Amino acid sequence: MVYPICLIGAGRIGRIHAANFANRPDIEVRYIVDYLPEAAESLASEVGAKAVDVATALADSDIKGVVIASATNTHADLIEMAAKAGKAIFCEKPIDLDMARTKACIKTAHDAGVPLLIGFNRRFDPNFAALKASLTKGSVGEVEMVHITSRDPSPPPVSYIKVSGGLFKDMMIHDLDMARWLLGEEPCEVSAQASCLIDPEIGAAGDVDSALVTLKTASGKLCQISNSRRACYGYDQRVEVHGSKGIIKLGNQLDSTVSLNQGTGEQSDKIQHFFLERYAEAYRHEAAHFADILNGKNQPLVSGTDGEKALALAEAAKQSLLNGVTIKL
Amino acid sequence: MVYPICLIGAGRIGRIHAANFANRPDIEVRYIVDYLPEAAESLASEVGAKAVDVATALADSDIKGVVIASATNTHADLIEMAAKAGKAIFCEKPIDLDMARTKACIKTAHDAGVPLLIGFNRRFDPNFAALKASLTKGSVGEVEMVHITSRDPSPPPVSYIKVSGGLFKDMMIHDLDMARWLLGEEPCEVSAQASCLIDPEIGAAGDVDSALVTLKTASGKLCQISNSRRACYGYDQRVEVHGSKGIIKLGNQLDSTVSLNQGTGEQSDKIQHFFLERYAEAYRHEAAHFADILNGKNQPLVSGTDGEKALALAEAAKQSLLNGVTIKL
Amino acid sequence: MVYPICLIGAGRIGRIHAANFANRPDIEVRYIVDYLPEAAESLASEVGAKAVDVATALADSDIKGVVIASATNTHADLIEMAAKAGKAIFCEKPIDLDMARTKACIKTAHDAGVPLLIGFNRRFDPNFAALKASLTKGSVGEVEMVHITSRDPSPPPVSYIKVSGGLFKDMMIHDLDMARWLLGEEPCEVSAQASCLIDPEIGAAGDVDSALVTLKTASGKLCQISNSRRACYGYDQRVEVHGSKGIIKLGNQLDSTVSLNQGTGEQSDKIQHFFLERYAEAYRHEAAHFADILNGKNQPLVSGTDGEKALALAEAAKQSLLNGVTIKL
Amino acid sequence: MVYPICLIGAGRIGRIHAANFANRPDIEVRYIVDYLPEAAESLASEVGAKAVDVATALADSDIKGVVIASATNTHADLIEMAAKAGKAIFCEKPIDLDMARTKACIKTAHDAGVPLLIGFNRRFDPNFAALKASLTKGSVGEVEMVHITSRDPSPPPVSYIKVSGGLFKDMMIHDLDMARWLLGEEPCEVSAQASCLIDPEIGAAGDVDSALVTLKTASGKLCQISNSRRACYGYDQRVEVHGSKGIIKLGNQLDSTVSLNQGTGEQSDKIQHFFLERYAEAYRHEAAHFADILNGKNQPLVSGTDGEKALALAEAAKQSLLNGVTIKL
Repeated sequence: MVYPICLIGAGRIGRIHAANFANRPDIEVRYIVDYLPEAAESLASEVGAKAVDVATALADSDIKGVVIASATNTHADLIEMAAKAGKAIFCEKPIDLDMARTKACIKTAHDAGVPLLIGFNRRFDPNFAALKASLTKGSVGEVEMVHITSRDPSPPPVSYIKVSGGLFKDMMIHDLDMARWLLGEEPCEVSAQASCLIDPEIGAAGDVDSALVTLKTASGKLCQISNSRRACYGYDQRVEVHGSKGIIKLGNQLDSTVSLNQGTGEQSDKIQHFFLERYAEAYRHEAAHFADILNGKNQPLVSGTDGEKALALAEAAKQSLLNGVTIKL
Repeated sequence: MVYPICLIGAGRIGRIHAANFANRPDIEVRYIVDYLPEAAESLASEVGAKAVDVATALADSDIKGVVIASATNTHADLIEMAAKAGKAIFCEKPIDLDMARTKACIKTAHDAGVPLLIGFNRRFDPNFAALKASLTKGSVGEVEMVHITSRDPSPPPVSYIKVSGGLFKDMMIHDLDMARWLLGEEPCEVSAQASCLIDPEIGAAGDVDSALVTLKTASGKLCQISNSRRACYGYDQRVEVHGSKGIIKLGNQLDSTVSLNQGTGEQSDKIQHFFLERYAEAYRHEAAHFADILNGKNQPLVSGTDGEKALALAEAAKQSLLNGVTIKL
Repeated sequence: MVYPICLIGAGRIGRIHAANFANRPDIEVRYIVDYLPEAAESLASEVGAKAVDVATALADSDIKGVVIASATNTHADLIEMAAKAGKAIFCEKPIDLDMARTKACIKTAHDAGVPLLIGFNRRFDPNFAALKASLTKGSVGEVEMVHITSRDPSPPPVSYIKVSGGLFKDMMIHDLDMARWLLGEEPCEVSAQASCLIDPEIGAAGDVDSALVTLKTASGKLCQISNSRRACYGYDQRVEVHGSKGIIKLGNQLDSTVSLNQGTGEQSDKIQHFFLERYAEAYRHEAAHFADILNGKNQPLVSGTDGEKALALAEAAKQSLLNGVTIKL
Repeated sequence: MVYPICLIGAGRIGRIHAANFANRPDIEVRYIVDYLPEAAESLASEVGAKAVDVATALADSDIKGVVIASATNTHADLIEMAAKAGKAIFCEKPIDLDMARTKACIKTAHDAGVPLLIGFNRRFDPNFAALKASLTKGSVGEVEMVHITSRDPSPPPVSYIKVSGGLFKDMMIHDLDMARWLLGEEPCEVSAQASCLIDPEIGAAGDVDSALVTLKTASGKLCQISNSRRACYGYDQRVEVHGSKGIIKLGNQLDSTVSLNQGTGEQSDKIQHFFLERYAEAYRHEAAHFADILNGKNQPLVSGTDGEKALALAEAAKQSLLNGVTIKL
């Protein structure tokens, strides 16, 4: 069975999803929607789809699923439109930067009875999945402390920073979702510390570029998150989970398995530099997972509620930073 | 421009090549040929091709290239048929187990003026390619000693061993090609030592399962190769090149970047266990390279002569083992 | 020139220091003092010293230095006695669990004009020293974020916990000193989160066994510390420093350079399990440093003020934990 | 009980042994002998010994052991003199460069009933010892292939090369002993290949500077050795043992556990550069072992016969190289 879908947003991440879905034998990418007609046309021709407007796409009753990869401020409206049209939804994170809007949106999807998958890509990465599977098997016993390092190779443009919702909602939200997933329990206390160390323009825009957050769950499990908008050595994505019976670590992916020693020490190859290459396989697995949702084989691994809870933690982190107190949820 | 090709051999490796070529926008897999009609039909339907016999495929003047992935003892005849039909050829190693037949075959392709690419897959692997590129840039200065470790996870069936041509021609031939490539100079002395340590049936079939070979070039560069038909810890594929200014190493690919320490030491994930996963990307690059040959952008990176020279080294290794002497080429 | 010294405290750490000083050609361990006469006698006979009481030792005008390795609650009194006797002092951390007493003690030593060296052993470890030297040379540019992991293999007896001053003053004080050293700037904000996850008896004793602390300096540099009283995989002592131009990491020392792969992944040897072996070399360097202080070649690398500042951070961490607020210093 | 010994040879390695024995409570270094009186005097004063001539030292009936660390061409005579004087002997490798002289010397010691320990230092290194212990426990099942890499940081002076006996007897002899130890079986076939790649003066002196040797035992176990007189990246000392149930590896010791990534990959610290630091601990264990021999607790771990057998393999390797044949022993 082949499921026709519509993809909204022909930008960088939209193109990745379009290609992955187009390569699947069980999916037909029928429509591409973008507010820039040329962008829609160009991507549509690459994947054998038609460039149309949203209304046209949603009116096609063959369409089973909608992939939302447009700008953040359009996500909530599009989710609601797709939900009302009865389509299964795969939306890039976040649902919305506003909590009330986020909750309303989730309710709409729920009331419409449509699946809503949120694109926290790391959950679909084979390395993170292997780590989670090992934890689930009890490899480290009881989880006690989770440490998440997440650093971008370089900061986005300040113009983006201004509309991003800030580091906690834009960047750390991935780590907050990962923390919930790995702790296996909801954090109920959040404290944050942060600085603007990389670019004063980021500070002038009201944001921070370096941040540390600590989480605690009801049973006392602890988590540290370290974020920076700039790591000159590459896209630094690591996790450690310390438990009663051991420690498990997830390291960075490198460009190759080649190492060189010219006398000053053995040097590995470089860390993969950009999220599109680092998570290329994760995006393919996300597409496979959404296909499984369309054909009824699976429920969303990451639900709207997961998106909401990560957003709540991001908001708490921001409150903690502003007020110098630990926030209790 | 899309180039129609014919693929001969619908077995394990043929299916890999068929899928890789079928995924390329610049290639049409038009025909699948196999001596088992059901195998041909099955693979043809998967990739949208037709199952035909060789004559039919070669008679189609649209067909620009032929991929030969059938049993070793059919390679030479098929190369000659394809050459006479004026098709570009991509043939799995080896051309033939017999040197005279190999040379005749290369001459036929040469006289027909068709490109002949031999499938030494490692040359197309990104890790080996990165190591070679680094050497070419002079990262270790003058190459002095090359060490190649190549071990299969487990031995093939003895029935296969009997028709394989023996460890040197069947397995070490990959390493002998790699040695030539990395030394950057022809080996002119070969000595071999070997044993049957894994399975006495292999010895009864007249073969060895564990072998060490040493090569030397005219300028004195040295190379050691270590082969085993069984490595319980996975498909062990490593290289070290020691030079006047440093050492470069190529390590194994692992199943993930996750490691675990439960008190007895930090344990990495497993080595990738099988050549199909270890060289999956190499096979994609091979297909891309053959597409580039078809469209005239490139000449074969691995020629018939490369196949011949690796075979000559394999024969010398066998002679050295039998006679207890260093063979001079 | 050989400097006679007196060592007070013939327990575990006292014996280490006694052996290290006794091996030095520039030091004579003349007296051993312990409240248990047999312990003093036994150690004295091992290192060729005399077991005497404190008054006798301090009355000997040949004695140039005093090493204090007795129980924590005796440190302050002994420092003051030694200072008044005009001896150079090497005292195990902490000076005292009470801040006022600590300050008074430092003043006494200062007024007496005697050097006071505090035994933060990691500063003398070759690995930590190599990391610090690399930072000083600017290897990572501007330091932005420091991450310190410090976990004991197993918790001390609860009887010890009760008199230890608690995790922050007893255990994390080493990491707080390390943070100051590596940040190169005084932390001015402290927030802490902690749990009792390992042993409820520790909680019943009013302490925690798992703790995370975040520090921030005036210029915005950040630091995370992770402590646990139990790491079944060994004495986990690691540091990462992320800066504007790179990242530097300090890993654990292992029992050997041997690794084993039996099919489930490559396993390194074990992490050194106990602080006495992990810091054996640091203790030898500490002894050498104190000898250099005695002969006037050097000033204390770790002063009383360093001890005081680490204690202030430990107190702030405890306050932060109790009140759920970030403490400003 | 304290055993007085005499040490002959106050050069580089003699000074190491003198210091290690002098630090032992169960040994008294009573005499230092050297053909340069000032060298003997200087070392004697450092360790509290007397500089005397050989005859005087051997005439002292208190002397239980003799440590021979003088030039190679004096070893055999000194062994025989010490044996006839009834002293236990610890002699640096080799006994002699000549096989007949070596055998005669071993016989003399045997007839005198004195223990003769040969200084193959690696056997006493904790890493090699850990690897051997793991093999003995069966960690890799049946040993099938041993790979030994041994490279000096830089070649010795050509003047030394000329009297060294050549690479096989001077340098590879350590690896040949290690091969015997790890294979657990006598090699009975030897083939060698070698070049002069580093310095033509070495070639002019009749020696090689880069060499590969292959060994085979009666049961078919295989071994590869790779030697170079120059590794610009440090003193490269590694081993791999591949067996029926796994692989075990011994890596290089590094200057520290610190690594740095400035964007071009993660770089470990340097490999320890010189044998004196790399094997410092091995020399301490050797001294302890000789002390155990003196007090009757142990027999020599490395006997004269071990020295003879390694020499026989080195001679076979040289014969193989000269004649281009596999030598059968």
